[in-house]
Amino acid sequence: MDSVRIKGTNSPVIVHNPYLQGLKDDFLYHFNLGKGTHNLPALFGDTRFVCVGGSAYRMKEFIEYIATELGMEDPQSKYPNICAGTDRYAMYKVGPVLSVSHGIGIPSISIMLHELIKLLHHAHCKDVTIIRIGTSGGIGLKPGTVVITKQSVDATFLPKFEQLILGKTVVRDTELDCCLAKELLECSKELDEFETVIGNTMCTLDFYEGQGRLDGDFCLYTEKDKQEYLAKAKEAGICNIEMESTVFAAMCKLSGLRAAVVCTTLLDRLKGDQLTSSHEVLHDYQQRPQILVAHYIKKQLKAKALHR
Amino acid sequence: MDSVRIKGTNSPVIVHNPYLQGLKDDFLYHFNLGKGTHNLPALFGDTRFVCVGGSAYRMKEFIEYIATELGMEDPQSKYPNICAGTDRYAMYKVGPVLSVSHGIGIPSISIMLHELIKLLHHAHCKDVTIIRIGTSGGIGLKPGTVVITKQSVDATFLPKFEQLILGKTVVRDTELDCCLAKELLECSKELDEFETVIGNTMCTLDFYEGQGRLDGDFCLYTEKDKQEYLAKAKEAGICNIEMESTVFAAMCKLSGLRAAVVCTTLLDRLKGDQLTSSHEVLHDYQQRPQILVAHYIKKQLKAKALHR
Repeated sequence: MDSVRIKGTNSPVIVHNPYLQGLKDDFLYHFNLGKGTHNLPALFGDTRFVCVGGSAYRMKEFIEYIATELGMEDPQSKYPNICAGTDRYAMYKVGPVLSVSHGIGIPSISIMLHELIKLLHHAHCKDVTIIRIGTSGGIGLKPGTVVITKQSVDATFLPKFEQLILGKTVVRDTELDCCLAKELLECSKELDEFETVIGNTMCTLDFYEGQGRLDGDFCLYTEKDKQEYLAKAKEAGICNIEMESTVFAAMCKLSGLRAAVVCTTLLDRLKGDQLTSSHEVLHDYQQRPQILVAHYIKKQLKAKALHR
Repeated sequence: MDSVRIKGTNSPVIVHNPYLQGLKDDFLYHFNLGKGTHNLPALFGDTRFVCVGGSAYRMKEFIEYIATELGMEDPQSKYPNICAGTDRYAMYKVGPVLSVSHGIGIPSISIMLHELIKLLHHAHCKDVTIIRIGTSGGIGLKPGTVVITKQSVDATFLPKFEQLILGKTVVRDTELDCCLAKELLECSKELDEFETVIGNTMCTLDFYEGQGRLDGDFCLYTEKDKQEYLAKAKEAGICNIEMESTVFAAMCKLSGLRAAVVCTTLLDRLKGDQLTSSHEVLHDYQQRPQILVAHYIKKQLKAKALHR
């Protein structure tokens, strides 16, 4: 049980905004939820694990799966979308687990995280662990390999998230929780169902030109340029490429959340750009981060029960 | 009829990628459509107008509305999502009008546009006009005012779209079609239903800190800093703020598409950050770009029929 860290510190979710206190209501527009219209502590106060991913379908699939794994199935298999009334994001909850979609890319996940972190704060949640379960392109890995992110880096291979605030560049650190990453790797060893590695993850603002693909609407570089760029990425310890991890790491760190990124690789970018695996195979790959994270959550809850 | 420009040039949709020809199939992954699996010219060849917007619900609402306006209603009110099988984007078609959702932010719309432009190219579409119909925050405008974008600028108020390609910064021009903007303004005058202006639009990578809001998870600046930033934006001719227009303008220009951005303003950012209008009022505001663009499309189709 060495690797199971029992947090008893009651760590709160931190917001860094003195103006929030002065707001009569705080309406989380893209969730269609509000502090004034919903009893957030009653609805969300017991949340301990938040899993986020791009696709709303996939996050619904995850809540159904974790419900079964935790023995908390709804007898009628009903898992209502808590954010009904908007189609920007979808949210589901079973016991201590919240599952939220974030769409594609840094701006989309950034809005979701601002509102999610405020929601967890307003609900007085403590000791929250947040894990992004996503898809990615691998670099030199067998498709279907799961990558747990060590360091999230930008397209210049640096571990930073740059953003413009009031027109000026602000740089934030993209450090993730290294203990959590190791605990997740251990879970994968226990499961022994698919290959899992710890490595760096590159986060880009574009899927085609931004990741050196040769199959976009535009491609003003050569295949040689692409291969050289990916080879350099590999040298920098980058195992996979996705589009949300830098801002996810930066915002979670500032908010005091234990955070990890667990992505499956749908293809090996050194060998191609288009997905050639069948729908069934790709679906199997996409379930792997879910299986891994569900195992981790079960283990944590079991350890917590034992320590009571 | 002076302002109705009849294009008879058969302008094709341009792709700038020598590698596309060599692809046996071209699978548009995020649309779940492919050149090898679908007869794209038969399905999409007659497309002349493409309308795009963030929300899938809204783009379905638009196709239902334009169908009625063009007298092309489906008797059973069925408007199937052409991208069924994925929840990344939604797509609907009625006659010469295609309606596609793009999610939130530059990376999300960029993927959609890469695949949309390739689709239009593979379908041999000609003389395509593309209009983003969206929502935005206004600067010094009465909520509900519709802004037709003159120039799309970034968060430093410059008319450029910067992106990292193979780790290096590439800068692209964000010029939109000024004739199309004027034609749309004329349509608004003909309709005389709501206020419409032509002005600059600022495109940011973030909704909270990136737009100077005081109600995000983080706010490390003061209300005075915010007001100074927005005042400078106003001085630079910026009428509204959204999150997709720079890359939309840049990609459409490179692809030879006539492009415009028409956004409603949901609030006046000089007066606040949160939406306080009722659901009904906001819905009315969101319909305004749809009404304007539907009028434009009807006028174009009528003029085309007259000139035959």
